[in-house]
Amino acid sequence: MDTIKPLDLENETTDFIEWLSKMGENSEGGITRLLYTDVWKQTQEALKELLKGKGFIAYYDEVGNLFARLEGSTFKDETILTGSHIDTVVNGGKLDGQLGIIGGIIAMEYLKDTYGQPIRNIEVVAMAEEEGSRFPFTFWGSKNIIGSVNREIVAELKDEDGVGFIQAMHNAGFDFKNSKIREDLKAFIELHIEQGGVLEIEKKSIGIVEHIVGQKRYMIEVEGEANHAGTTPMGYRRDAMNGTSRMISEIMDLAVNYGDPLVATVGKVEVVPNTTNVVPGKVIFSLDVRHTNKDVMIKFTDEVIEKLKDIASKLDLKISINNYMDGEPVAMDSNLVNTIKEQCEAKAINYKLMHSGAGHDSQIFAEHIPTALIFVPSHKGISHNPAEFTEAKDLVEGIKVLIETLYNLAYK
Amino acid sequence: MDTIKPLDLENETTDFIEWLSKMGENSEGGITRLLYTDVWKQTQEALKELLKGKGFIAYYDEVGNLFARLEGSTFKDETILTGSHIDTVVNGGKLDGQLGIIGGIIAMEYLKDTYGQPIRNIEVVAMAEEEGSRFPFTFWGSKNIIGSVNREIVAELKDEDGVGFIQAMHNAGFDFKNSKIREDLKAFIELHIEQGGVLEIEKKSIGIVEHIVGQKRYMIEVEGEANHAGTTPMGYRRDAMNGTSRMISEIMDLAVNYGDPLVATVGKVEVVPNTTNVVPGKVIFSLDVRHTNKDVMIKFTDEVIEKLKDIASKLDLKISINNYMDGEPVAMDSNLVNTIKEQCEAKAINYKLMHSGAGHDSQIFAEHIPTALIFVPSHKGISHNPAEFTEAKDLVEGIKVLIETLYNLAYK
Repeated sequence: MDTIKPLDLENETTDFIEWLSKMGENSEGGITRLLYTDVWKQTQEALKELLKGKGFIAYYDEVGNLFARLEGSTFKDETILTGSHIDTVVNGGKLDGQLGIIGGIIAMEYLKDTYGQPIRNIEVVAMAEEEGSRFPFTFWGSKNIIGSVNREIVAELKDEDGVGFIQAMHNAGFDFKNSKIREDLKAFIELHIEQGGVLEIEKKSIGIVEHIVGQKRYMIEVEGEANHAGTTPMGYRRDAMNGTSRMISEIMDLAVNYGDPLVATVGKVEVVPNTTNVVPGKVIFSLDVRHTNKDVMIKFTDEVIEKLKDIASKLDLKISINNYMDGEPVAMDSNLVNTIKEQCEAKAINYKLMHSGAGHDSQIFAEHIPTALIFVPSHKGISHNPAEFTEAKDLVEGIKVLIETLYNLAYK
Repeated sequence: MDTIKPLDLENETTDFIEWLSKMGENSEGGITRLLYTDVWKQTQEALKELLKGKGFIAYYDEVGNLFARLEGSTFKDETILTGSHIDTVVNGGKLDGQLGIIGGIIAMEYLKDTYGQPIRNIEVVAMAEEEGSRFPFTFWGSKNIIGSVNREIVAELKDEDGVGFIQAMHNAGFDFKNSKIREDLKAFIELHIEQGGVLEIEKKSIGIVEHIVGQKRYMIEVEGEANHAGTTPMGYRRDAMNGTSRMISEIMDLAVNYGDPLVATVGKVEVVPNTTNVVPGKVIFSLDVRHTNKDVMIKFTDEVIEKLKDIASKLDLKISINNYMDGEPVAMDSNLVNTIKEQCEAKAINYKLMHSGAGHDSQIFAEHIPTALIFVPSHKGISHNPAEFTEAKDLVEGIKVLIETLYNLAYK
């Protein structure tokens, strides 16, 4: 493939983002586009019309994933899929999810206009849902494409207003998937914003994801005894906050000691009774641990648990540790990673091999077909917020990498 | 004075407590008796009737402190005062405050019945207010007796329902004090529960207070940067909770290192945004420091502040420290402490020389006249709670010590 011609990709990209962002726009300048809502359906319908206008075959699957297809000439049962999710969190930004759809459409159109028909099919997908923001279930779109969906679990789900999942799905004109799992899908490529600050800090335009981290979450309850702050000598205290502070320091030290890509976060801390003049009787805190390697994650959390129990025992505190979430790391396809890496090197693009600390549709696909996840920088790491921002030149760099990757997969 | 005769002091005391506790009793088994409320007035009136029935002169001062007087024979311008406050916190117990009034009345009656007229006047006072539970102003009763009251400050105060302090005072039939400060008061003796667990743990019946601690309170704000828990490597974090945990550990270590009677408490911790998967951007926490020696307290807090700033600086966090309360320690009268100590030794009473970590009316009197504060144990240190409890034998021991102290002051 030649160097991508100096089309006005930058204006096309930013105009497309602004156009799509009008759908679900709220008064705070963000986007709220929750699964199967009216505005969600209007967005998918608008995209479908746009895609037909561009000359692509556009169609839904049963659950509402929207596909646009460019037929291949030779390997008609082989499809290269790109795209991302169309839903947002409440008051989300203009890039999380939809950048991957916009990028995919621009890329497919560019390839068609420049190189004509590919030898394999190319499809772009605007997936129904990834965020879990309306119903407490994530990756509804990708799980349906790849077949690993649990009909029973979603059947009982309700949104904040008490509307059931199935009712919402029916209202939007969709239903459970009944068709067979597609066997033509040979690769999935997702373009996404980093949602972290690493690329910006390290001045890289492209992140090539090697792993999506696994995640373990805990709620930890430390119990001592609430006492009068004035009348209880230090030696007679069983101060749950004193214990908790030592536990948090220990967790942080151990995490730094393990080194990247391990991250450990104590984000939530609730003190009881939480009064200036009472020695804390109880503290409940969260622990979120992520790593790309399952064994390292287990080793780390085992070590943490042992250390926390030690601290509790030394300070005469009770401790209970509840591991309420356990997600395994997922590797992206190493051949695809290498291909994209070589592309970047050939074009002297500033790239970084990295991991994703957040979850993405790619992790669902990666368990079934070769999958790649391409990041562009997030300004200050901000995401799930109207302030989400990536410089236009980086957006374009990401789309160029996507174009070249699709070319390598569908034209050669 | 002879050994106090085996009167049935125990039944008298517990019956008196039960009788008085009916006034202001709530459905949770506690007492709510806030300054100048109807139930507060009814309580003072019931006490006044009771005292008159026992043959004492009973009278109010202008603000509603209720006095009962036993006239002395010789030194008619010298009065020994005992008592405590009649108000409670919301849903308080049966001992905080009113035990000192009940003990005083029983003691005065016992002395009158056993030894007749004293040479100095004895008075028992049921002080209007100490807790600051209706209006944000404490020690209203004792400050009026001793003259150090600020009329301007209370004039603007309102309770939770928007009722003004002066209006409440007028409704109860009282007004600001206009009479001169009494010059006849020669000593004040207060019997009170410990409100801490030291006497119970150390198996002592009596605490003789040498100092009431000074108190410094701070609100400390630690500011870092809120970031995604998954996508922000440990090295790129400015985690306010990480910093706070190290600060709390440092404060606790330093407090233990300084030793008794220093206590330092971080009772309140607020994390922002307080979400499992977000690195904390801000933490606001309280620090309460108490000690009997002003200079030690200053040295300690200076050292703490320096250490906290060090930690903040090392972790690239901003810190702001607001010292919003600053109360100096108060010494009780050393002659009275010695007298009571000798009494206890002569009667082989298990006593402890100690400090009070909580504030009491005694600290107001102590700045003007010789003052003593006598503690009896609090079961598990519980106070300001319906579960406040002291064994009857210890209540009686406290009253006996009070009787003997008043005897020494008013009969010799």
